[in-house]
Amino acid sequence: MTEQEVQQLVDRVETFMIERVLPAEELNHEQLTKGERWDYSPIVAQLRREAKEQGLRLFPVDPSLGGLGLNLVEFAPIAERINWSNMGPDIFNCYSGTISNINTLSRYGSEAVKEQFLRPLLAGEARSTISITERDVPSSDPTELKFSIRRDGDHYVLNGRKSWATGAMHAKCTAILVLGATDPDAPRHQRHSLVVVPKGAPGLTLERLETVMGFDDAPFGHCDLIFDDVRVPVENRLGDEGAGFAIIQETLGLGRIQLGMGAVGAAERAMMEMCSWVEKRVIGGRPLVERGVVTDAIARSRIEIDQARAFIMHTARLIQEKGARGARSEVAQAKVLAPDMALRVIDRAMQFHGGAGLSWSTPLAELWAHQRAVRIGEGADEVHREVVARLELESQRRRRKAYQD
Amino acid sequence: MTEQEVQQLVDRVETFMIERVLPAEELNHEQLTKGERWDYSPIVAQLRREAKEQGLRLFPVDPSLGGLGLNLVEFAPIAERINWSNMGPDIFNCYSGTISNINTLSRYGSEAVKEQFLRPLLAGEARSTISITERDVPSSDPTELKFSIRRDGDHYVLNGRKSWATGAMHAKCTAILVLGATDPDAPRHQRHSLVVVPKGAPGLTLERLETVMGFDDAPFGHCDLIFDDVRVPVENRLGDEGAGFAIIQETLGLGRIQLGMGAVGAAERAMMEMCSWVEKRVIGGRPLVERGVVTDAIARSRIEIDQARAFIMHTARLIQEKGARGARSEVAQAKVLAPDMALRVIDRAMQFHGGAGLSWSTPLAELWAHQRAVRIGEGADEVHREVVARLELESQRRRRKAYQD
Amino acid sequence: MTEQEVQQLVDRVETFMIERVLPAEELNHEQLTKGERWDYSPIVAQLRREAKEQGLRLFPVDPSLGGLGLNLVEFAPIAERINWSNMGPDIFNCYSGTISNINTLSRYGSEAVKEQFLRPLLAGEARSTISITERDVPSSDPTELKFSIRRDGDHYVLNGRKSWATGAMHAKCTAILVLGATDPDAPRHQRHSLVVVPKGAPGLTLERLETVMGFDDAPFGHCDLIFDDVRVPVENRLGDEGAGFAIIQETLGLGRIQLGMGAVGAAERAMMEMCSWVEKRVIGGRPLVERGVVTDAIARSRIEIDQARAFIMHTARLIQEKGARGARSEVAQAKVLAPDMALRVIDRAMQFHGGAGLSWSTPLAELWAHQRAVRIGEGADEVHREVVARLELESQRRRRKAYQD
Amino acid sequence: MTEQEVQQLVDRVETFMIERVLPAEELNHEQLTKGERWDYSPIVAQLRREAKEQGLRLFPVDPSLGGLGLNLVEFAPIAERINWSNMGPDIFNCYSGTISNINTLSRYGSEAVKEQFLRPLLAGEARSTISITERDVPSSDPTELKFSIRRDGDHYVLNGRKSWATGAMHAKCTAILVLGATDPDAPRHQRHSLVVVPKGAPGLTLERLETVMGFDDAPFGHCDLIFDDVRVPVENRLGDEGAGFAIIQETLGLGRIQLGMGAVGAAERAMMEMCSWVEKRVIGGRPLVERGVVTDAIARSRIEIDQARAFIMHTARLIQEKGARGARSEVAQAKVLAPDMALRVIDRAMQFHGGAGLSWSTPLAELWAHQRAVRIGEGADEVHREVVARLELESQRRRRKAYQD
Repeated sequence: MTEQEVQQLVDRVETFMIERVLPAEELNHEQLTKGERWDYSPIVAQLRREAKEQGLRLFPVDPSLGGLGLNLVEFAPIAERINWSNMGPDIFNCYSGTISNINTLSRYGSEAVKEQFLRPLLAGEARSTISITERDVPSSDPTELKFSIRRDGDHYVLNGRKSWATGAMHAKCTAILVLGATDPDAPRHQRHSLVVVPKGAPGLTLERLETVMGFDDAPFGHCDLIFDDVRVPVENRLGDEGAGFAIIQETLGLGRIQLGMGAVGAAERAMMEMCSWVEKRVIGGRPLVERGVVTDAIARSRIEIDQARAFIMHTARLIQEKGARGARSEVAQAKVLAPDMALRVIDRAMQFHGGAGLSWSTPLAELWAHQRAVRIGEGADEVHREVVARLELESQRRRRKAYQD
Repeated sequence: MTEQEVQQLVDRVETFMIERVLPAEELNHEQLTKGERWDYSPIVAQLRREAKEQGLRLFPVDPSLGGLGLNLVEFAPIAERINWSNMGPDIFNCYSGTISNINTLSRYGSEAVKEQFLRPLLAGEARSTISITERDVPSSDPTELKFSIRRDGDHYVLNGRKSWATGAMHAKCTAILVLGATDPDAPRHQRHSLVVVPKGAPGLTLERLETVMGFDDAPFGHCDLIFDDVRVPVENRLGDEGAGFAIIQETLGLGRIQLGMGAVGAAERAMMEMCSWVEKRVIGGRPLVERGVVTDAIARSRIEIDQARAFIMHTARLIQEKGARGARSEVAQAKVLAPDMALRVIDRAMQFHGGAGLSWSTPLAELWAHQRAVRIGEGADEVHREVVARLELESQRRRRKAYQD
Repeated sequence: MTEQEVQQLVDRVETFMIERVLPAEELNHEQLTKGERWDYSPIVAQLRREAKEQGLRLFPVDPSLGGLGLNLVEFAPIAERINWSNMGPDIFNCYSGTISNINTLSRYGSEAVKEQFLRPLLAGEARSTISITERDVPSSDPTELKFSIRRDGDHYVLNGRKSWATGAMHAKCTAILVLGATDPDAPRHQRHSLVVVPKGAPGLTLERLETVMGFDDAPFGHCDLIFDDVRVPVENRLGDEGAGFAIIQETLGLGRIQLGMGAVGAAERAMMEMCSWVEKRVIGGRPLVERGVVTDAIARSRIEIDQARAFIMHTARLIQEKGARGARSEVAQAKVLAPDMALRVIDRAMQFHGGAGLSWSTPLAELWAHQRAVRIGEGADEVHREVVARLELESQRRRRKAYQD
Repeated sequence: MTEQEVQQLVDRVETFMIERVLPAEELNHEQLTKGERWDYSPIVAQLRREAKEQGLRLFPVDPSLGGLGLNLVEFAPIAERINWSNMGPDIFNCYSGTISNINTLSRYGSEAVKEQFLRPLLAGEARSTISITERDVPSSDPTELKFSIRRDGDHYVLNGRKSWATGAMHAKCTAILVLGATDPDAPRHQRHSLVVVPKGAPGLTLERLETVMGFDDAPFGHCDLIFDDVRVPVENRLGDEGAGFAIIQETLGLGRIQLGMGAVGAAERAMMEMCSWVEKRVIGGRPLVERGVVTDAIARSRIEIDQARAFIMHTARLIQEKGARGARSEVAQAKVLAPDMALRVIDRAMQFHGGAGLSWSTPLAELWAHQRAVRIGEGADEVHREVVARLELESQRRRRKAYQD
C-alpha cells in the first residue's frame, strides 16, 4: 500500500469511529444491561457488519488470509483510533488477542485446526481466547505454570484450572488456546506446549466471573476455566511439543505495539471528552476552560500523550527493522510507560467531569479500569523495569569496556 | 469518658473489626450477589445486631440520644478503624451520613419529625439519605441549585430531579432530607431550605442507578430521585426557611474528620493486605518482600499515611478548639489530602496483588473506587485548593502588613 | 515555662527574624563576598550580639548551662522560625550541631574539656564541628568507618582523613569532635570512640573545600580534615572507649526535630517569598496571583507544609514520651519527608521567581541546596525507608499473630 | 552527506567526548579555580584546537560559511553527545547561542558587520552573546521590553540595563547582539530592533555577576550590561527596523532542538555516572546495583530519556518538514518536557552518589543547575503549557466542528 493509501485508510477508520462507534456506546451499554449480556449487543453486531462491508478489518493480517497486510508502522495509527472506545477493536475484528491467535493458528495449526478454528475467526463469525494465567503463578514468571497437558496415544488430556481467561464467556467464543506443561521436567523454556480446545469440549467448565475494578467487561468477561480430563486430538497441538513459549513470544512485537497504541488511543479519547466538557461546564459563572488548572492539565496531557506516541512509533520502526528481540528494552519500556501515561490522562478527565467521570455517563471510568489492568497483565511494571535496568547496565558496561574505562 | 476508657473502646472496635467484620467481607459479597442486593445481607444484619448488643455504635452521638458522646479527637481513631472495610461504618451505625442526619434531625426537627424519622435512625432500624446534588450544578457551587420547594398552605410541594442520592436505594432507607430552593430570589446563601421526605411519598420515584468505577455500591447505591408534586407538611422543614445551607455547614467539621480518618483507615487496610501478601507471594523463587521496590513502596505508604493522620488529628483538635470556621483552611486541606493519599497507597497494594488486586479477591478495588469518589464529592480538589490559596494569601498579606513590609 | 511564656518567646523570635535577620541577608552576602569570607560578617556578628543581649539563644539547652531549657515540643516552633534563613540558627547560638555538641561535651567531657571547649561554645565565642564522614564509607553504614584513634600512653594518636566537616573552615571554630576506631576488631557498635581535638593541633590540616550545588556555604563551609599523628590527651575522650556510637545516637531525637522543623521553616520562607512575589509580578498585564496554576501551587505547598509540620510535632511528642528509640519509625520518616517536602515547595517558589529564584536575588536557591544536602546527610532516604519498611512489616506480623491470622 | 557519513560523524564526536572531553572536566575545573576564571582554561583551549583540526565543529552551519551543513535530524544525535558535558558544545564551536548568532549575523549583517563580528565567530576566535532579558520584564512577555535604541543620524544610541547576558563576561566575547525598542509606540511585534555592539564600546559596562544555584558558570557567566549613551553605526542593525522579534523567532526551531537534545545529553551523562557508580559503591556489603530501588530508578530514567528523545526527534522531523511554525505545539512541548526529564534523571544520580553528587566530585550538580535554568529561560513552563493548551483546544474544536458535534 502506498503512504497515501494508508493515510486514506486511517482517515476512513477515524470517520467510522467518530460517526458510528462513539455515538453507539451508550446504546451498547443499555442493550447489554437490559438484554443478553454475554453476546454482541444488536448495535455492535450491526457495526461489525458495516465495518466488514467497508473492508475495515484485519488491518495487520496477511493478505493471504484476507487481511489488509499493514506493517507495524502503518497499523499503529489505526490501532490508536480503534482504541478510542473499548468497543472499537473488536468491531474491526482487530482485537489484539484475535490478531495474535490468527497469526498463531495460521502459522502452526494443522489443516483441520485451520478449518475448524481459524476460518471462522477470519470471517468474524467466531472469537477465541488464549489461556495462560494460573492463579498461584505470577504472570511475570510463566515458566512456573503447572497446568497439565498429558499425552495419551493420539490425544492430549488436559487437567487443571486456568484463570483470567479474557473473552471466554463470550457466546461467540469457540476456540480456546491453552498453554500447559507437556514435560514438567524439561528445561524451563521447553516444558510447555500450546493446544487448541473447542469451548464445548466435555470436561471443560467456566466459573468465577472476575471483575476489573467493578466492571465485568461484558460481553467479553474474564473467568476461570476448569479442565477435568478434557481430551483433544494430537493435531490440535500448535507447533512442536515444548515450543509453547517460543510461539507465544512471536506475538510479542505486534502485541506490544497494539497495547501501546491502545493506551495512546484511550488517552486521546479522554482528551476529546475533557476538551469538549470543559468548554461547556460552568462553575461560578465561568466555564472550566477559563481556569488555569484546567488548561494546565490539558497541556500536561498533550505532552504526555505525544511523548508516549513518539516512543511507541520509534519502537514500531525498531521492531520492524530488527525484530522484537532487537528491541527488547523498548518493548519492555512501552509496556510500562503507555498505560501509566493513559491512566494519568484519563484520571484528569474523570476529575474535571465530577460524578459523570466515574459513572457510565462517560466512557472514562471503563477506559481507566482497562488501562489499570494493562499495568498488571503480561507482567507487572516492576518486572519489566528490571529487564530495562539489566539491559541498560549491560549496555553501559559494554561502552565503558570499549573505551577501557 | 477517661482517656483509658476511650482507649479500651478503640481496642474493642479494633478487635471487632479484625475478628468479625473483615472475615465477613467475602460472604457479604456472595450474599449480595446471589440474594437480595438492596438490603443488608444476612451476615451484615447479624454483625449489626452484635455490635449493638456490645454497645459499639453511635460513638460521636450525644448521650441524650443514646450515643457514646465521644468528641472529635476521641472519635477519630475509631473512625479510622471502622473504615478498614467499606462495610464497617454502617455496622456500628456510624456511617457519616447517618451521624450528620441524626444531628440535623435532633437539632432542627419538630417532635413529629423526631418520632417519625429520628427514633428509627437511632435504633438502627432505618437509614436515611441527604439529597443535595443536581446533575447540572457542580457540587462546588451549591448556591446554584435549582430544585424547587414551594410553599402551599400547610405543605411544601417538591418538584425536580436530584442525582447521586447515596443510600436511597437501600430497603431500610425511610428518610430523605432534601435541599431545595424555597426562595430563588433571596441572597445566594438564603435561598434554600431543608425538608425531610418519607421515601414512600407519592410522586417520588427512584431512577438511574449510578456506578462508581463499575461498582454499584450495593446495598446502598447511588440514584436519581424524581419529585413530581411531592407534598410534605410544613413541620417537615428542618430549621428556618432559607437556613438550609447554614444547617448543612454545621455538619462540616465532624464530616471532614470522618472523611479524613476514613481515608486513613482505607489506606491502613491496604497496608495490612499489602504487608501480608508480599510475605506470601513468591516470584522467581523469592517472596516479594525481599524486593527493594516492594519494601520501598511499603515505607512510602507508611510515611504518607502517618503524615495524613497527624494532620487530620491536628485538624480535629483545632475544630474542637475553634470550631470548623476557625479551621477553614485545615478543613479544606484535609478534604484534598486524605483521599489523595489513600488512592496512592491502595494503588500500590493493587499493583503488588496483580489481578487479585483489581477483582473481588481483595477489598482493594472497591476501597480505591470509594476514595476516588471522595475526591469529587462535596467539591473537587481544585475548588478546595482555591480556598486554601485564598486564605494563605490573606494570611501572608496580614503578616506583611503587621510588619510594614 | 508556662505555655504563655513559651508563646511569647516564639513571638519574640518571629519578630527578631522578620525585623532584624531577613532584611540583613543581602548585606551579609555582600560582606562575605567583598570581605573576609570565613568568619562572621560584621552584620551577623552584630545580630548575634543583639540576640544574646535579648536572651534569645540556647533555647533547648539546660538552664544549668545557661540555656532556656525548652523541651522538644516547646522548641519546635522556634526551630521552625530560626530556619526561615540559613543565617538564622547560628545567630541564636542554636545551630543544630552546636546544640548537640554542647549536650555531648557537657554530659561526657572532663572538667578540662568543659573549660577549654564547652564554656566558649556556650558563650557564643567559639564554634565546633563533629567529624564522622569518610569519603569511601557511606554515611548510611557508619560502623565501617576506618579512621584510626590509637592509644599511646596518656594520649590518643589520630590518623586518617575525614571529609565533609561542616563548619570546620569557620574562623571561630575551635573544637573538633572526631569519631574514630579505637578498637577495629570489637563488635560493630563498640569499635569507635569520640575525642575532641583543638582546631590548631599540630598535624591537623584542612583541605578541599566542598560545594553544595555550587554554594560554598561560607562562612561555615565543608572540608576535609587530614590528621597526621595528631595527639590529644586521654581526657579529651568523650565517654567510654567504644561508646562513640551510643553517644552520637543520644543526639538523634533533638537533631531530627531540628532537621524536620528546619525544613518546615525553609518551606515557610519560600511560601512568604512566593506569596509576596506573585502579587507584585505582572505578566501579560495580570499579576501572577490571578493565574490558577499559581494559586494551585500555593495551596499544594500549604498542604504539604502543614502535613509535614503536624507529623514532626507528633514525632516530637512521641520522642518526649517514649524516647527516640520508642519513635524509631517516626524519626526515620521525619528524616525522609521533611526535606522532600521543602524541596518541592522551594522549587515552586524558584520557578515563579524566574531568574531571581535561581540567583542571589532571593534566598531560595541556597535554601534549596541546603535541603537537597539534608536528603543525603545522616543516611540517604532509601536507607531510612528500609528501616521504616522493616518496622512496618514487623508490626503487621505482630498484629496478625496476635489475632492468629 | 549520506546517512553513513552522518553516522561516522556521530561516532567520531562520541569518541572525542569520551576520550578527550569527559576526562578533562576535572582539570578544567581546577584550572578555572586556580588560574584565570573568565577565559578558556588551557585544557579547553587545547581541546578546541584539536576539535577544529579534526573538522569537528559548526555541524549545523551552512557549508558556505565553513560549517558541515547538517540538517536538524542529522545534527540532533550530535547535539545530544556534545551536551554530555557542560564544556562540550563550545569545544565544537556549537554552543547554541553561537550557532544562532552566526545564522543571524550571516543573514542580516552588513558586510562590515560580517567582517568585524561574524568571521571571528566562525573561526572560533571570538564569542558572542545576545542580550534580550530585562529584569523587570518576564521573558515570557518580551513585547514589554523597555530598553531604548534611539536613532540619531547615522547612529543608534543605546540606553538602559539588560540582565542575564550569558557569556558576556568571557574574555573572548566581542559581539553583543542587543534587542531594544526603536519605536515604542509601534504595534507590539514591530517595536523592537536588533543591533550588534562591540563589547568594548564606550559607555558599556558589565556588572552584577549572577549565579545559577551557586554556580557562576565560568568562564561564560551571566551579568548585567549597562548602556549609557552607547553609540553604534546604523549598519550595525541586523535586518529591518522593527524586525527584531521576527529575526529572533527564526532561530527558534534549531534552538529548541539543541535545548531538547541538550537535556537528553545531560540526562544520558547522569545515566553513565549512575550506572558506573552503583556497580562500585558498596553499602552494607552489597554494591548498590543489587538493590531494587537502584535498578528501578535506572529503568525509570531510561524510559524517561528514551521517551523524550523520541519526541524531540519527532519534533525535529516535523520542523524540517513544516517549519517551526507548523510545529508550534511540539516546539513548546519540547521546551517543557526536556529539562523536566533531565532534572529528574540527574537528581536520581545525585542521590545515589551522596555528597559526591552535590559537589564538584561529579559533573551532576552543575548539569542539574544548568537544566534548572532551562526551565526558566525563554519562557517558563507554565507559559508554554498555556500555548500547548490553547492549540489543543482549537484543534479539538476544529475536529468537533468537522463532524458537526
